[in-house]
Amino acid sequence: MADSRFDSMRWNTLSSRTIIKDRWVNLRADDCQRADGTMIAPFYVNQLPDFVVVVAVTEDEKFVMIYQYRHAIDKVILEVPAGCLEPGESMEAAAARELLEETGYEAGELTFLGKMAPNASCLSSYAWCYLAEDVRKVDGQKLDETEEIAVVLMAEEELLKALREGRVEQAVHVGALYQALDVRKGRSLTRQNKE
Amino acid sequence: MADSRFDSMRWNTLSSRTIIKDRWVNLRADDCQRADGTMIAPFYVNQLPDFVVVVAVTEDEKFVMIYQYRHAIDKVILEVPAGCLEPGESMEAAAARELLEETGYEAGELTFLGKMAPNASCLSSYAWCYLAEDVRKVDGQKLDETEEIAVVLMAEEELLKALREGRVEQAVHVGALYQALDVRKGRSLTRQNKE
Repeated sequence: MADSRFDSMRWNTLSSRTIIKDRWVNLRADDCQRADGTMIAPFYVNQLPDFVVVVAVTEDEKFVMIYQYRHAIDKVILEVPAGCLEPGESMEAAAARELLEETGYEAGELTFLGKMAPNASCLSSYAWCYLAEDVRKVDGQKLDETEEIAVVLMAEEELLKALREGRVEQAVHVGALYQALDVRKGRSLTRQNKE
Repeated sequence: MADSRFDSMRWNTLSSRTIIKDRWVNLRADDCQRADGTMIAPFYVNQLPDFVVVVAVTEDEKFVMIYQYRHAIDKVILEVPAGCLEPGESMEAAAARELLEETGYEAGELTFLGKMAPNASCLSSYAWCYLAEDVRKVDGQKLDETEEIAVVLMAEEELLKALREGRVEQAVHVGALYQALDVRKGRSLTRQNKE
């Protein structure tokens, strides 16, 4: 999306090597050079896969939120459902599947909210964010062996309060929730103007 | 902030070792165990320092945005000023300094918006987000050797359009910008109600 005027800001990667690759990590070290010749070497990138994030809202306007432990900050935090793609799966299918597995709620129509990089400096992954509306509880949870998730439903006012008080701590989830609120409000204004 | 009901979700770290530590990385591997005995070993955490993020608005209501290259996604992207603390520096001082160095704008009053984790699963760092209002251009840029930054001023409508079109790609910056818009709107509503 960036302006081509800024192309000269890009770094040229002269060489790249893998430091460690395992289930939860894929760290590479790049030797980079700027257009003015300055070397930035090595610069480290954790090359993790893209993932999906789902803001889900029930027919009676409750947000389907979860509590989950996050090891890097050693804390159980308030989030929205999210997860990685299975082989061959589309983003939309992954979003619907993760929502169902983590909460037992089935996605109605999915709206793409946008994609965001959790940390564009040192992590290559993007979060693809979706809004699922009119979701319905159809099943129990089906969790991976490393997952333990508690589901909570929150009204919009309660969610806004949590956002304002910093109780949604993951940046991608904060961004996706505000985008979802923005999209839903835009629609509601459109409806009001038509009436 | 999490409910103590969820304490049993936390992982117990049985042992921890450093994989690589260098200027841009501090990767450790933890052997973890869940309350039910399941081992998650190793799990990798990049233990990077916290940083500050500044949404700056001029007296005539323009947002001070920047374009910067981000190597992990190999792209020049639209952002707000951000950076790490210098030794002994407070968060507020770092926010004001980064704004001044990256853009030449001097912070007026700073409002703390909240802190967010870019990726609470694999990165330990938090972004401390501030709103700086009535900022004024007082100087040129003073950039680090690895920085190259182009400053652009955007009106609120233009910024909202960029947010909605996904042109702000860093999740922390998306979150901070929406929080800043929310805070400013809340104030403006309070003023209207008083009038």
